[in-house]
Amino acid sequence: MKIILVGASGTIGKAVDAALSPRHEIVRVGSSGGDFRADIGDPDAIESLFEHVGAFDALVCTAGKVHFGPFEAFTPEQYDLGLQNKLMGQVGLVMAGLKRIGAGGSFTLTSGLLNDDPIPAGVSAAMVNGALEGFVRAAAIAMPRGIRINLVSPTVIEESLPAYGPFFPGTKAVPAAEAALGYVKSVEGAQTGRVYRIGWSRDT
Amino acid sequence: MKIILVGASGTIGKAVDAALSPRHEIVRVGSSGGDFRADIGDPDAIESLFEHVGAFDALVCTAGKVHFGPFEAFTPEQYDLGLQNKLMGQVGLVMAGLKRIGAGGSFTLTSGLLNDDPIPAGVSAAMVNGALEGFVRAAAIAMPRGIRINLVSPTVIEESLPAYGPFFPGTKAVPAAEAALGYVKSVEGAQTGRVYRIGWSRDT
Ligand SMILES: NC(=O)c1ccc[n+]([C@@H]2O[C@H](COP(=O)([O-])OP(=O)(O)OC[C@H]3O[C@@H](n4cnc5c(N)ncnc54)[C@H](OP(=O)(O)O)[C@@H]3O)[C@@H](O)[C@H]2O)c1
Ligand SMILES: NC(=O)c1ccc[n+]([C@@H]2O[C@H](COP(=O)([O-])OP(=O)(O)OC[C@H]3O[C@@H](n4cnc5c(N)ncnc54)[C@H](OP(=O)(O)O)[C@@H]3O)[C@@H](O)[C@H]2O)c1
Repeated sequence: MKIILVGASGTIGKAVDAALSPRHEIVRVGSSGGDFRADIGDPDAIESLFEHVGAFDALVCTAGKVHFGPFEAFTPEQYDLGLQNKLMGQVGLVMAGLKRIGAGGSFTLTSGLLNDDPIPAGVSAAMVNGALEGFVRAAAIAMPRGIRINLVSPTVIEESLPAYGPFFPGTKAVPAAEAALGYVKSVEGAQTGRVYRIGWSRDT
Repeated sequence: MKIILVGASGTIGKAVDAALSPRHEIVRVGSSGGDFRADIGDPDAIESLFEHVGAFDALVCTAGKVHFGPFEAFTPEQYDLGLQNKLMGQVGLVMAGLKRIGAGGSFTLTSGLLNDDPIPAGVSAAMVNGALEGFVRAAAIAMPRGIRINLVSPTVIEESLPAYGPFFPGTKAVPAAEAALGYVKSVEGAQTGRVYRIGWSRDT
């Protein structure tokens, strides 16, 4: 398959690249480097990305920024970063990619555990991750031409513990290679509308 | 208690008003009428609302707009209506209200079933409802001064069936008076960070 991987140079993206590239052609995308440079917050850049790549079979996004900070001090601009970048950046890839992805192709987006297993500094991440879950479930039943869409929701990644560890007391971490399994299942499997939780499970 | 009810004149709002007004002082708010007029999409109007009302004990919001339409034709502006109005309109009430609500007070917001039980025309509603769930769970553990926050997620309302019925094949409806129970539980009860699902339950 020809797979567009947005965020290929990141902690999770590198592991997804390693898991998929032995069997697939990967087009690596980032805002500062890769086979193609595009900022997911910029709709024009996304259009050029799809024009440049042409027909493709799957898109995986492991990019998306949100602000972390104390709840009472959260500003509209800080909420907006998550909404415009991690949420609408990923949704924009789907909406624009829809016109060019092959029949039976798939989209795989990335959220994280914070909407179900919150931390005080993570109101925006919780909002955005919840929004992605709702979007993916609804989009899955509205997709044309047998196109599928799933979400990977990893727990904190072992390789990220030096940076984020103190925010996640008592939270089990997994190596990025384990999170990559969710993306492989989404791309090479047959399910749609699923949230693949990696390293954690939702309270029912 | 002194309770601000945003959306008091609506299908759900009227039932909440009827359920709470026998025991509480209600300040009724809407964009076109009520005791105070304020558009939840306008941060300045929200500030004036809180200045006008002064100290209060609970805020309930039963207002919030999203666009419904075919998935492939959804535009950024259509997604934005839901994000700015139903999502950030309600979140803005919480962020601005936080400075003025009494210790032990509560916020109660409104979502709906579409993030877990989607319909093809409802990608934006699914996104916004999921975002509200994530936000409420995270905000609940970050609230100061014993302030609580919950979400009411009703199934389709019987009184709305003439307008929305055809979008919800096979979906059990409940009267607005039944949805109002969730708001009473949130305001008069002691729980926080809860999603009160009215007339439906989540697939686990
Ligand atoms: N790491 C964790 O513990 C963890 C756990 C759960 C969920 N997540 C989520 O997973 C996602 C990736 O996390 P990560 O730790 O792998 O991030 P990361 O190491 O910071 O990598 C981010 C990747 O995305 C690219 N990128 C950043 N901004 C971009 C933009 N505006 N447009 C296009 N590409 C952009 C970066 O490349 P450039 O620098 O070239 O732009 C890089 O390849 C995030 O949404 C995060 O919330 C992470
Ligand atoms: N009805 C259902 O079947 C159902 C089911 C599940 C969830 N919900 C959700 O519940 C919420 C309320 O639904 P509803 O059917 O009761 O709505 P509704 O009958 O249309 O009433 C909406 C209320 O909100 C007020 N309002 C509208 N826009 C506003 C704004 N920008 N600022 C301030 N107030 C505003 C309206 O008053 P003004 O006209 O004066 O502004 C009115 O009081 C919506 O978010 C809806 O998605 C509804």
